[in-house]
Amino acid sequence: MKKFWLIVLSVCIVASIVSAQTKEVVAIRKYTRDNMASMVGEFISFLSIPNVASDSVNIPGNTGFIMQMMKKRGIENIRLLYAVSKATPPAIYGEVNVPGAKRTIFFYAHYDGQPVNPDQWAKGLSPFEPKLFSESIERNGKNIPFPKDSVFNPEWRIYCRSSSDDKAGVVAILNAFEAVRQSGIQTTSNLKFFFEGEEEAGSPHLQEIMQQHGSLLQSDLWIICDGPVHQSGKKQIVFGVRGDTHLDVTVYGPTRPLHSGHYGNWAPNPAMMLAKLLSSMKDENGRVTIKGFYDDVQPLSTAEKKALADVPSVDDQMKQELGIKTEEMSGKSLGESINLPSLNINGMQSGNVGKQASNQIPTFATAVIDLRLVVGNDWKKQQQKVIDHIQSQGYTVIDHDPSMNERLQHTKLAKVIRDQSSYNAQRTSMDIPIAKRIITAVQSTDKEKVLLQPTSGGSLPLYLIEARLNAKCISVPIANHDNNQHAENENIKLRNLWNGIETMAALMRM
Amino acid sequence: MKKFWLIVLSVCIVASIVSAQTKEVVAIRKYTRDNMASMVGEFISFLSIPNVASDSVNIPGNTGFIMQMMKKRGIENIRLLYAVSKATPPAIYGEVNVPGAKRTIFFYAHYDGQPVNPDQWAKGLSPFEPKLFSESIERNGKNIPFPKDSVFNPEWRIYCRSSSDDKAGVVAILNAFEAVRQSGIQTTSNLKFFFEGEEEAGSPHLQEIMQQHGSLLQSDLWIICDGPVHQSGKKQIVFGVRGDTHLDVTVYGPTRPLHSGHYGNWAPNPAMMLAKLLSSMKDENGRVTIKGFYDDVQPLSTAEKKALADVPSVDDQMKQELGIKTEEMSGKSLGESINLPSLNINGMQSGNVGKQASNQIPTFATAVIDLRLVVGNDWKKQQQKVIDHIQSQGYTVIDHDPSMNERLQHTKLAKVIRDQSSYNAQRTSMDIPIAKRIITAVQSTDKEKVLLQPTSGGSLPLYLIEARLNAKCISVPIANHDNNQHAENENIKLRNLWNGIETMAALMRM
Repeated sequence: MKKFWLIVLSVCIVASIVSAQTKEVVAIRKYTRDNMASMVGEFISFLSIPNVASDSVNIPGNTGFIMQMMKKRGIENIRLLYAVSKATPPAIYGEVNVPGAKRTIFFYAHYDGQPVNPDQWAKGLSPFEPKLFSESIERNGKNIPFPKDSVFNPEWRIYCRSSSDDKAGVVAILNAFEAVRQSGIQTTSNLKFFFEGEEEAGSPHLQEIMQQHGSLLQSDLWIICDGPVHQSGKKQIVFGVRGDTHLDVTVYGPTRPLHSGHYGNWAPNPAMMLAKLLSSMKDENGRVTIKGFYDDVQPLSTAEKKALADVPSVDDQMKQELGIKTEEMSGKSLGESINLPSLNINGMQSGNVGKQASNQIPTFATAVIDLRLVVGNDWKKQQQKVIDHIQSQGYTVIDHDPSMNERLQHTKLAKVIRDQSSYNAQRTSMDIPIAKRIITAVQSTDKEKVLLQPTSGGSLPLYLIEARLNAKCISVPIANHDNNQHAENENIKLRNLWNGIETMAALMRM
Repeated sequence: MKKFWLIVLSVCIVASIVSAQTKEVVAIRKYTRDNMASMVGEFISFLSIPNVASDSVNIPGNTGFIMQMMKKRGIENIRLLYAVSKATPPAIYGEVNVPGAKRTIFFYAHYDGQPVNPDQWAKGLSPFEPKLFSESIERNGKNIPFPKDSVFNPEWRIYCRSSSDDKAGVVAILNAFEAVRQSGIQTTSNLKFFFEGEEEAGSPHLQEIMQQHGSLLQSDLWIICDGPVHQSGKKQIVFGVRGDTHLDVTVYGPTRPLHSGHYGNWAPNPAMMLAKLLSSMKDENGRVTIKGFYDDVQPLSTAEKKALADVPSVDDQMKQELGIKTEEMSGKSLGESINLPSLNINGMQSGNVGKQASNQIPTFATAVIDLRLVVGNDWKKQQQKVIDHIQSQGYTVIDHDPSMNERLQHTKLAKVIRDQSSYNAQRTSMDIPIAKRIITAVQSTDKEKVLLQPTSGGSLPLYLIEARLNAKCISVPIANHDNNQHAENENIKLRNLWNGIETMAALMRM
């Protein structure tokens, strides 16, 4: 009988918690619905400020805007955290302390965005002019005016650089905090905010900022709001990120551009040289052929493997959506692929194509190679494997444009610039108590089962937080999966923004 | 004794001819020296008018300018020869008839230029703003003002699009005619002038213009003033041209650009696909591996082989100048290479490099392939060989951007656009009387031995003149070999312009 009452008691406690959670979710939802127009208005003002990290003219506009948003919401101790070594985009810090708090949680997002090439954006779009569309452009969405009232269709999308990556993260966090505060919900954690300004540039000064401001940055947990939800539309919690590094590779033809008739097939063509070099890096099945490329990979744990198996396959859906018949690495699923190190050509260029094409032998050819890393990889070592491979193809590798003397001494010269703003992968165990608490919090906002991913395909410098600040890191992404982040026509679906606010609010209450 | 007097008589006749020639060369040289400033002034006004064939706003400025130049020099019957099918840049015609003329000679040059990419030009240069330099940019030449008097150093260069290819041809011909006329030299040939406006666009309407205006275009000979003198600096007469055709090849990745982390090595990367495809077209020794690529080549005659052997080798000089250690097709000299069909990548592009590079999987990759043809090749057949090769690499070849359905049906899709403005190679025998007359005329202007080339590496639609107008064609080029034609930083050395005027004047007198 004692056991019976114990069960009843447990059920009641669980029911009351669920009910409280539900009540709070409903309150947040109501707040979001009631304030849509002003939230969107603020968001599009924010998006209109160009935010490439190297754009020193516009970066202060972004930091100023965010600090105003924070101040308006009652966040305290707001300040810019600068690196001292160089004038680079600062991180923005703020905090809200609660008497008797059980823990301290950081909410992280970044306010800088990827570089843009305006020519590549769809007709009528400009990278820093937010526009509202009825649907995605690929599905023939139409440009519509921003409504003045609160009637927003959750299927609508806002197109603009960083609309999802990652100004959406900044506004979801700040609006979630506002919703929690205005709904009178009590938090049991101290909340801290950290908005980075150089993430898309590879976070070259994050470590320095952490060293400089270590005492401010102490916490139990960092929640990272960046990246997309699962392709199925389900929410997901991501326990790791891939590392990332780059190599810029340039090979050389004649010192001056030559007439392709007078010298064609006598003077070496750098585009052909680069094609042969890149081609040698992968086999016909998409597997990287660089020696030792897949070595060093630390295998997934049993729990991680199980979580991965529980993630529904989206391969067929994504192939249909993206017009792909066969995946690059034949036989490997998307889930398997992102748990391996990768080699991707971000861009490749020699001479001109299209209307600017002319009958010439170009003087050089360049490719930007992106290497994603998994736990076990070291970025310097991974770079070196590629450089060793380039040498194995007969190239002399240099770090500068070649002198005439070098050109005359070597048949094949490759300038390789190593990205120094690189970082390794990171993974947090799914089994620790704080991980379970996060799962419960996110699950409270959704009837659909929240998915658990051992790693994201994308990258963030989370190993720094783990190593330098001794805090756990877990990512809770919010953007739609088809957001075109990092490319032209970036967008966010409004549904994801509203859901993101609910998710972040739940994490602030936990 | 009779034989003795015959010999003396012959020697006297030859001596008087040589002496007359020398006198006339001296007269032309004096005229050129005395009028340098006004010639250069007129030339730079001409160069300042943008002249890409597709630039319909500026083309009339070029035709108007040339017609004025012709009128000022007393050329008659000046008119624009239009194609009727389409509003395209017209050819410009004019004539000067001589009573009792022994022959009619056309002088050909083209006034249009290759497309430009202003970003690629050296600092301080703009494609259509002629600038004077003390030396070539590669040899640290300095920008100097155009002098107001006639003191011009023949080593100076004018930088501008078409400064050598081929507005230099137009002004050399017209100034040569002016020099002949002003020096009171009598000609024994009718002279006709033909300045084409679409040569760099592949002469797509030349055939139509020839059909339309066939009666005006009758002559014994076309002298083509286009291209560079020999790399040794010696004058050369070129008896043939390579044919030319192009293929634009595009391969496809996902329908929208993807984040290289979230999809890297799962979604096919079109840059890697293109690299593999291009790479398959040549072996490590630079030999084209496309089936039957070197078939159909009509071998050189004994006289042509001998002439080629007499051309001094410039391979070592050119390697030193261009910073090349090893030629592309290993073991083949420059002379041998340009007597073979070629495959050159004019340009190659996917995603972005440099400051615009972003972490993405691009949606497509494009290359422009330039195929040069020799006598025996048919351009449609040569295109087809490349297309067959692309298919042999597993590609389905289409002529349009693929539909979603096509993408889902085929793993590898290549859009191939065949250049329809293509033409075959042409070669005139060195042994015919008019060829010998030309050799004598050009030789009269120079103490150095004039070189005879069976073919140019470059291309002109001369097969049309031969086939449609039943006239012989021989090229007498004038530009410096290091003129960067077809590319950024195009230039002409003043020495070549002055020498070109003398050469053209000698041909008008023959």
